[in-house]
Amino acid sequence: MIVLKTGLHEECGVFGVYSPHTTDVAAMTYVALYALQHRGQESCGIVVNDRGVFSHHKDLGLVPEVFNRSQIEKLGQGNISIGHVRYSTTGKPSRSNAQPIVVRHVKGPMSIAHNGNLVNAHELRRKYELRGAIFHTTNDTEVISYAVTEQRLERSSIEEAVEYAMYDLKGAYSLVVMSPQKLIAARDPNGFRPLCMGRRKDGSIVFASETCALDSVEAEFERELDPGEIVIADSDGVRSVRTHCGQKPSLCVFEYVYFARPDSVINGCTVHDARIRAGKLLWKEHPVEADVVIGVPDSGLDAALGLSQASGIPYEVGFIKNRYVGRTFIQPNQKMRTDSVRIKLNVVKSVVAGKRVILVDDSIVRGTTCQRIVSLLREAGATEVHMRISCPPFTNPCHFGVDIDSKENLIACQMTIPEICEHIGADTLGYLSIEGVQSLATPDMTPQTGFCTACFTGNYPIEVPKEMPKDKFEKKIGE
Amino acid sequence: MIVLKTGLHEECGVFGVYSPHTTDVAAMTYVALYALQHRGQESCGIVVNDRGVFSHHKDLGLVPEVFNRSQIEKLGQGNISIGHVRYSTTGKPSRSNAQPIVVRHVKGPMSIAHNGNLVNAHELRRKYELRGAIFHTTNDTEVISYAVTEQRLERSSIEEAVEYAMYDLKGAYSLVVMSPQKLIAARDPNGFRPLCMGRRKDGSIVFASETCALDSVEAEFERELDPGEIVIADSDGVRSVRTHCGQKPSLCVFEYVYFARPDSVINGCTVHDARIRAGKLLWKEHPVEADVVIGVPDSGLDAALGLSQASGIPYEVGFIKNRYVGRTFIQPNQKMRTDSVRIKLNVVKSVVAGKRVILVDDSIVRGTTCQRIVSLLREAGATEVHMRISCPPFTNPCHFGVDIDSKENLIACQMTIPEICEHIGADTLGYLSIEGVQSLATPDMTPQTGFCTACFTGNYPIEVPKEMPKDKFEKKIGE
Amino acid sequence: MIVLKTGLHEECGVFGVYSPHTTDVAAMTYVALYALQHRGQESCGIVVNDRGVFSHHKDLGLVPEVFNRSQIEKLGQGNISIGHVRYSTTGKPSRSNAQPIVVRHVKGPMSIAHNGNLVNAHELRRKYELRGAIFHTTNDTEVISYAVTEQRLERSSIEEAVEYAMYDLKGAYSLVVMSPQKLIAARDPNGFRPLCMGRRKDGSIVFASETCALDSVEAEFERELDPGEIVIADSDGVRSVRTHCGQKPSLCVFEYVYFARPDSVINGCTVHDARIRAGKLLWKEHPVEADVVIGVPDSGLDAALGLSQASGIPYEVGFIKNRYVGRTFIQPNQKMRTDSVRIKLNVVKSVVAGKRVILVDDSIVRGTTCQRIVSLLREAGATEVHMRISCPPFTNPCHFGVDIDSKENLIACQMTIPEICEHIGADTLGYLSIEGVQSLATPDMTPQTGFCTACFTGNYPIEVPKEMPKDKFEKKIGE
Amino acid sequence: MIVLKTGLHEECGVFGVYSPHTTDVAAMTYVALYALQHRGQESCGIVVNDRGVFSHHKDLGLVPEVFNRSQIEKLGQGNISIGHVRYSTTGKPSRSNAQPIVVRHVKGPMSIAHNGNLVNAHELRRKYELRGAIFHTTNDTEVISYAVTEQRLERSSIEEAVEYAMYDLKGAYSLVVMSPQKLIAARDPNGFRPLCMGRRKDGSIVFASETCALDSVEAEFERELDPGEIVIADSDGVRSVRTHCGQKPSLCVFEYVYFARPDSVINGCTVHDARIRAGKLLWKEHPVEADVVIGVPDSGLDAALGLSQASGIPYEVGFIKNRYVGRTFIQPNQKMRTDSVRIKLNVVKSVVAGKRVILVDDSIVRGTTCQRIVSLLREAGATEVHMRISCPPFTNPCHFGVDIDSKENLIACQMTIPEICEHIGADTLGYLSIEGVQSLATPDMTPQTGFCTACFTGNYPIEVPKEMPKDKFEKKIGE
Repeated sequence: MIVLKTGLHEECGVFGVYSPHTTDVAAMTYVALYALQHRGQESCGIVVNDRGVFSHHKDLGLVPEVFNRSQIEKLGQGNISIGHVRYSTTGKPSRSNAQPIVVRHVKGPMSIAHNGNLVNAHELRRKYELRGAIFHTTNDTEVISYAVTEQRLERSSIEEAVEYAMYDLKGAYSLVVMSPQKLIAARDPNGFRPLCMGRRKDGSIVFASETCALDSVEAEFERELDPGEIVIADSDGVRSVRTHCGQKPSLCVFEYVYFARPDSVINGCTVHDARIRAGKLLWKEHPVEADVVIGVPDSGLDAALGLSQASGIPYEVGFIKNRYVGRTFIQPNQKMRTDSVRIKLNVVKSVVAGKRVILVDDSIVRGTTCQRIVSLLREAGATEVHMRISCPPFTNPCHFGVDIDSKENLIACQMTIPEICEHIGADTLGYLSIEGVQSLATPDMTPQTGFCTACFTGNYPIEVPKEMPKDKFEKKIGE
Repeated sequence: MIVLKTGLHEECGVFGVYSPHTTDVAAMTYVALYALQHRGQESCGIVVNDRGVFSHHKDLGLVPEVFNRSQIEKLGQGNISIGHVRYSTTGKPSRSNAQPIVVRHVKGPMSIAHNGNLVNAHELRRKYELRGAIFHTTNDTEVISYAVTEQRLERSSIEEAVEYAMYDLKGAYSLVVMSPQKLIAARDPNGFRPLCMGRRKDGSIVFASETCALDSVEAEFERELDPGEIVIADSDGVRSVRTHCGQKPSLCVFEYVYFARPDSVINGCTVHDARIRAGKLLWKEHPVEADVVIGVPDSGLDAALGLSQASGIPYEVGFIKNRYVGRTFIQPNQKMRTDSVRIKLNVVKSVVAGKRVILVDDSIVRGTTCQRIVSLLREAGATEVHMRISCPPFTNPCHFGVDIDSKENLIACQMTIPEICEHIGADTLGYLSIEGVQSLATPDMTPQTGFCTACFTGNYPIEVPKEMPKDKFEKKIGE
Repeated sequence: MIVLKTGLHEECGVFGVYSPHTTDVAAMTYVALYALQHRGQESCGIVVNDRGVFSHHKDLGLVPEVFNRSQIEKLGQGNISIGHVRYSTTGKPSRSNAQPIVVRHVKGPMSIAHNGNLVNAHELRRKYELRGAIFHTTNDTEVISYAVTEQRLERSSIEEAVEYAMYDLKGAYSLVVMSPQKLIAARDPNGFRPLCMGRRKDGSIVFASETCALDSVEAEFERELDPGEIVIADSDGVRSVRTHCGQKPSLCVFEYVYFARPDSVINGCTVHDARIRAGKLLWKEHPVEADVVIGVPDSGLDAALGLSQASGIPYEVGFIKNRYVGRTFIQPNQKMRTDSVRIKLNVVKSVVAGKRVILVDDSIVRGTTCQRIVSLLREAGATEVHMRISCPPFTNPCHFGVDIDSKENLIACQMTIPEICEHIGADTLGYLSIEGVQSLATPDMTPQTGFCTACFTGNYPIEVPKEMPKDKFEKKIGE
Repeated sequence: MIVLKTGLHEECGVFGVYSPHTTDVAAMTYVALYALQHRGQESCGIVVNDRGVFSHHKDLGLVPEVFNRSQIEKLGQGNISIGHVRYSTTGKPSRSNAQPIVVRHVKGPMSIAHNGNLVNAHELRRKYELRGAIFHTTNDTEVISYAVTEQRLERSSIEEAVEYAMYDLKGAYSLVVMSPQKLIAARDPNGFRPLCMGRRKDGSIVFASETCALDSVEAEFERELDPGEIVIADSDGVRSVRTHCGQKPSLCVFEYVYFARPDSVINGCTVHDARIRAGKLLWKEHPVEADVVIGVPDSGLDAALGLSQASGIPYEVGFIKNRYVGRTFIQPNQKMRTDSVRIKLNVVKSVVAGKRVILVDDSIVRGTTCQRIVSLLREAGATEVHMRISCPPFTNPCHFGVDIDSKENLIACQMTIPEICEHIGADTLGYLSIEGVQSLATPDMTPQTGFCTACFTGNYPIEVPKEMPKDKFEKKIGE
């Protein structure tokens, strides 16, 4: 997946901190969002709680674009803060959908940040609307806010409200919820999205989508939340509610393959190591004689290194990626539009000229980029190009927070593997098997039974609506 | 009232257009908001309805700052549009409070723009919150949205929902409400704030806070909405609902004295003419021998001209106002801070040197600016300065949409008129009487019994809460 | 002259301050440029001299757009500072032409700000280029810098260099020149553009294009520089060099009619008073029976008041100008483009309906705006419209710093006065006579022999090149 | 060299294109500057020549920040264009120093972009100033402009002017010069900085600092300019002037070690390959027993891979660099300031825990960053850390375009290698030898005699002034 602003997109990263003392929680959240930036580049936001008074700032843009020093200072001190980064779309991004959401219900202010996707959001919206609710956004977080608010009227605490609201929420969600006195983290019973917890030396409790955010604020990793678990941090300390725990976990396998940062640890396994394993398995499943192994930067590099380690074929740097290509690259005019791959990637000719090359990437969506990359290698003198993909072919939509392209655009829905191989111009093409991805996170490469692999198999861990309501599909589509 | 970003502030101007055809309603709303800019400089917004799909843009800033050509083009074509300008505060302005509000309820999208202030907003919020409502903003418009949404569940049309919601709303409001098919304008039963209606040659119906906005979009003025009236424009044409009509009107007299643009017509009287009359009455009530009459730019100029006409004393231009002084002037440093009046106004010395001057302004809030202006005239050689104010002294808060300073800052709450005269350094000081302001809008200068003059008298046309809830006072205070 | 960004334009305003002590000279210059903003809205700049180290900031935009508090703080303290505002063009404005110019020659740094226009700039450029000079800008200030630098190599001081350079400079110039130790002000021997001097209580000497800038920084007006005079301020105090004095003065009469702020004093006459006189003379020259006198805002208002005073016909406010119309108004789309006059001006109908109106403006360039305004009055019910213009018809280009439209666009070059009258739709049309404008600045209205009136007569006070070189005409053209 | 905005900096990258036809040369230059962005992030600029009319745009910021689509469109079409990227400093960057410089001399307009540093700039400035020259900038490019302009007065063509000017210029320079009709590229006789030439299919000739820019605009690499060579492209085709050729070349060895992009080819050797060789040589010179080889991202990765290849010790990914850390990262407050390395880099703990690690970087400047990185590895459980640096210790300033830190900050000027090893907390420390870097570019790793290695040895290829004039040291200093 290498082209500009395309491919797969996940909805968001979350962060929360509870400190026993009033301190620079805004600055801490800022640093953590910086570390989570890879989970969402469209918009971001921070909410600070200073003795019950909530201040917030959120906008479209990267973390350092939305927050400068004066913005962080304006948010001021506090003892609780939550933050959010939201994914980048090709469609029109909307400022009003930026998170965290900040609302006031009958018991006072509340703020929620959410990573995931509800499958019954439409149904819940309908229910609340029939009681007179109005919606300002189209995101699930507002639906979740209503669910919690509804319960809050009858429950004696915010954590109970969250607990009972979870009976209504179906789908993928990793949440942080802030009330005037408390910080609450919750993970859906299937554990689709990661959520972990750490502790700083000053006693602060932090929650984050990935462990790399804990590292960035010098918090010691303590543990991941179990699927279905609710953890509450307040002046009484930290406690856990486990009434929703115990279901079969179904972590999104793409957290390992693509989304998470390689230095993060999920389910006890470093993401980098999982990708190295993907490369080794690829070799085992699809060996081929070759002179050099290269990866497509950046997401194919780890698997390429693993394939090299397993095969003994030298690992090399075949492409240089322009480090300044970012959200901001603008096609100077229509004529030069076709060169977007070339602008981003340049072949190191001396590495591939006259060589049989194994090229590793993490996925193929439409195939156009892949085709272009293979052709750049041929132009540079590669005699053979053997494409290896570190996951199985996509053939199904995701209902749990990943924007995969529509079926008519997914090449694997339209062609057989040999046809794809011919289409992209490779000599051979090998995808990692379903069993392969299921064993990524285990040191002995044995399949793990806790993954959601629905995008490859169509077997969804929980029932999804036959026809997803329309506004769920207003979102942009990949590549 | 002349200093930078201070004095009295009203909450907002509204505009709406219903066209029988899809056309450039965004551009039309833009031009109209431009004409209404004097009613609010903090934020503005436009919502366009293209066959039921609502697009909006709103932000902090002046109309031409928030909307450039590409923004207007993005809003696209449509057949209904509403817009709003919001007042400028000295406190921290909030983007989330910008209007129009755009929400989705059970029957679809709805957008509302509002000018005024509810006196029972707090009570209504509480009621909705107890049913599970969540609030994103602190403005009354969201409360109104809930009131309309609540009725919409039981009523068969949006206009009925508005009609029945009005039984719950207490206070001042001039509204435009947009549904997928209809544009509705409504004015509170007391008619605190103006609202008028016009028609363009292409058949479009427009509603606006002031007639100057009709002129700007080449709409023919048709009539003002009566207090309590609801007017609906849709594919069936225009119709009126008058169930709330018939109460004693109480138009805010400050619309004539200060807020409205001089070229606007309210209650059949051109604002400029009312100000001319104020000057004439001032002369009648407080004659004095003098050589020249001057006004404080810009709001004192018309009354000064009227006083000159009544007295025969020559009208002159005594102050030049820097036309570039706007929201953007920044004190370069602490040391020069005291010069803000001088930066804004400079005396034309040759006009006042050696003269007995009558100086006309529209109000005195704290008295500091007035004091400074009188002293500038003395420095320039004026031998006498006779201050005339075209309204009575402020002594009471407004609960209907005007931000008057707090009592401890209002000079008329702290001093007698002779004390004020001495404090500001004038030779004589005359305020227009209550009877005077009540007769501003009548050609024969007879008192009209339809004004709210509570800020001068404390007699509120409708009951107001003894203690306004706290968040109502989070707003900034004047001068 | 009322339309957006069109009409006549003068090149610039200058300001300089020399303080005996290190102080906030940047802030002082900022405040003064604010007061001079009407002389140029395209770009502005400030240079601060802190013991020989020059810091500067300049950019496109209005003074408060280019300078915020942090920019002013960055410029820091110093004891000398100069500043400049540059006029707004309809063509593409260029950042590199912003002033003051800051250069380094063999004796160290030098900064110059300039108001005017050289007639021999092309010839001088050629001379310097033949000696190896390179030019970064197309403005005259760089030419002046070379002229001063050339002399500086042979003269023992910067003031001598300026004095001898003036033998080479032909045309209009009011300059401030800053060296590491000195501030120098100089005015061309004809005195085309104003330049005055004042003194603050702290002993600072200030120079400015207009007295309103002195007032803004609380400097006492001391005197105007004589045509040809050079004044030097340094640690030895203030001294004058008068070797270029004694020629017949030829002040641009448009400084009174249009450019200068009404509160400024030029040649001992307040600009406002001169405009009042223009109105009186207009009445004397072109009397007519009418019911009301109105001016076109803002520049026609003073003359309208004068005409009213002379005639006894009541002065009224006939147009309201949208105070927010500025540089930033953007046509929302092509369709609404024709309404630009309406967006800016709205008629107060009650003032003109059924009346015979005398309408006063300061000039007619192309006639299109004038035509539109007359038609707005007719639409509003005026029964007669008598147009009066407070200067004679333009028929010639200005070579001394005013951008008048090209001959083919000047209506007075294409039509007779009766034809213009018919073209604009007025009942009668009267221009002020040449003798009239020459007597504007004298209390007894006797012609003064010190004006340049070449734009009306074609009689240029100094010889101008037959064919001005091309880059002189790259500038934008009016209306 | 890994910390934010510190370390070594080179002055700039240049690009030029001559097309036989009018075409999108601005867009082409934009794409090429994008590829050269790594050579300078402070400012950038493009100048387009449309039949002798020069348009330009330049500003502070990255290429995609300074140029958006509308800016590129405004530059318009043309047949010649040059562009420039300028390095990022820690001091205050200056807009007026942005390049290319655009001037007008006696024969018309000229534009120059320059990469390098003159050692006699001060002397030349003095010479021109004594003839009346004025300088607007402090950069060498303006000095070069005067040198060319001086010659242009006496020579019959711009290329002759450049040729003769080169007799005056001492130091490092790779230039592109644009005249109304011609594009000229020139490289100093020592060839300190690279400069290459390519040709597009449409017949356009392009010059660039690095071959990666040729690739980005789909130009075929033709050859590098020889040291001292001048190449002229005009309507007669391409021709070369070689009067300055023949001196001993002294290419900056840091182009291989750090500056150039790995995919660029210099002197026939791909930069990536040279870095791989550096790693191999490091192993040969400083072998050690270890479990894993890792590089400091991004510049240490290639050498780490080479060391792994030579040693057989596995190559691994030990650090993850936050890809969003860029120019824009702002320390949220003072307290968190010490974490800048942690914000940028995070250890992959599973890769290094319990391992003996060889850590490769390209240089050590002050040692503080290096110390922090070693400590991060220890925290993550590395049992041994063996530091290897792919160049010799810096001990001398560079006078040819690289900003190395001042001697008092260079750790190698203050400590012996064992002391440095202890200071940074490594178990062993090995620098590449002088002979090593001299053999980087040769496949058989034999020393090449064409490098400047003065920063390591103090042996400058051309005489440098004993005391560099002060303004040469106004530049910022590293790390």
